[in-house]
Amino acid sequence: MAYEFAERGATEAVEEGRALAPKFDADGLLTCVTTDATSGDVLMVAHMNAEALARTIESGEAWYFSRARRKLWRKGESSGHVQRVTEMRVDCDQDAVWIKVRQEGPGACHTGRRACFYRGVPLGKAPDKSLVLEFRDAEKAFDPQSVYGDKR
Amino acid sequence: MAYEFAERGATEAVEEGRALAPKFDADGLLTCVTTDATSGDVLMVAHMNAEALARTIESGEAWYFSRARRKLWRKGESSGHVQRVTEMRVDCDQDAVWIKVRQEGPGACHTGRRACFYRGVPLGKAPDKSLVLEFRDAEKAFDPQSVYGDKR
Repeated sequence: MAYEFAERGATEAVEEGRALAPKFDADGLLTCVTTDATSGDVLMVAHMNAEALARTIESGEAWYFSRARRKLWRKGESSGHVQRVTEMRVDCDQDAVWIKVRQEGPGACHTGRRACFYRGVPLGKAPDKSLVLEFRDAEKAFDPQSVYGDKR
Repeated sequence: MAYEFAERGATEAVEEGRALAPKFDADGLLTCVTTDATSGDVLMVAHMNAEALARTIESGEAWYFSRARRKLWRKGESSGHVQRVTEMRVDCDQDAVWIKVRQEGPGACHTGRRACFYRGVPLGKAPDKSLVLEFRDAEKAFDPQSVYGDKR
């Protein structure tokens, strides 16, 4: 696909301007926060390269770049759990985007949960070996083995 | 301060276990998504090194690591705009945390806005030079020059 982003200008232009001039990191990626358009919960944090960002903008469906698999990845291509983007925002220095999505299917997380953030970290004490994470909203919404098989 | 995290085990232990075993990247950082505990809006995306994560857990106030300034950074140390953490979650592979905060003061963004995501990206067309960002929730909540001076 053909696409083009604006060139990065001075700080003032990046922060106060109307051009999309993303700041990709040394690996060519920016951070994407994905929230549920209805509940507002954070579903996942992932990365986009330039093509994933362009495809998301063009299609209105979430595309990411998998750092583990080193490949472009249309969310839901294996599971059918597509994400329809209702809104995209970019942050001040344009190294992160926030997308609000309608999640198709039971969940966004490859572990079978609705969302990736299913464990709480207890606060108030410096972390040590005694720290115990607390499962929250951790019910499995689908069986990852049957959905992903060996592609997980 | 003294702190210790668990060692990274096998995938099953990282994803389904109760030990906090963060996955810091090559620069020693993980991603933190910070949302407003009341509105649910994403206020900012930033990074934490091990010490910032430990200090946040211990104090219940947000600490980050500034990639630009290469230093540990207590949110609000210059501006007074401290973030009180009401909940922290960690994601499936433990390379990202989500904190819900009560934001003290008028805003979280160094540009003077309540939050960093004050521009929308129009969807439905491949991005090119004609793309125009749309300002949303972009009113200045404070004057960054008077709050940060030259420390911005």
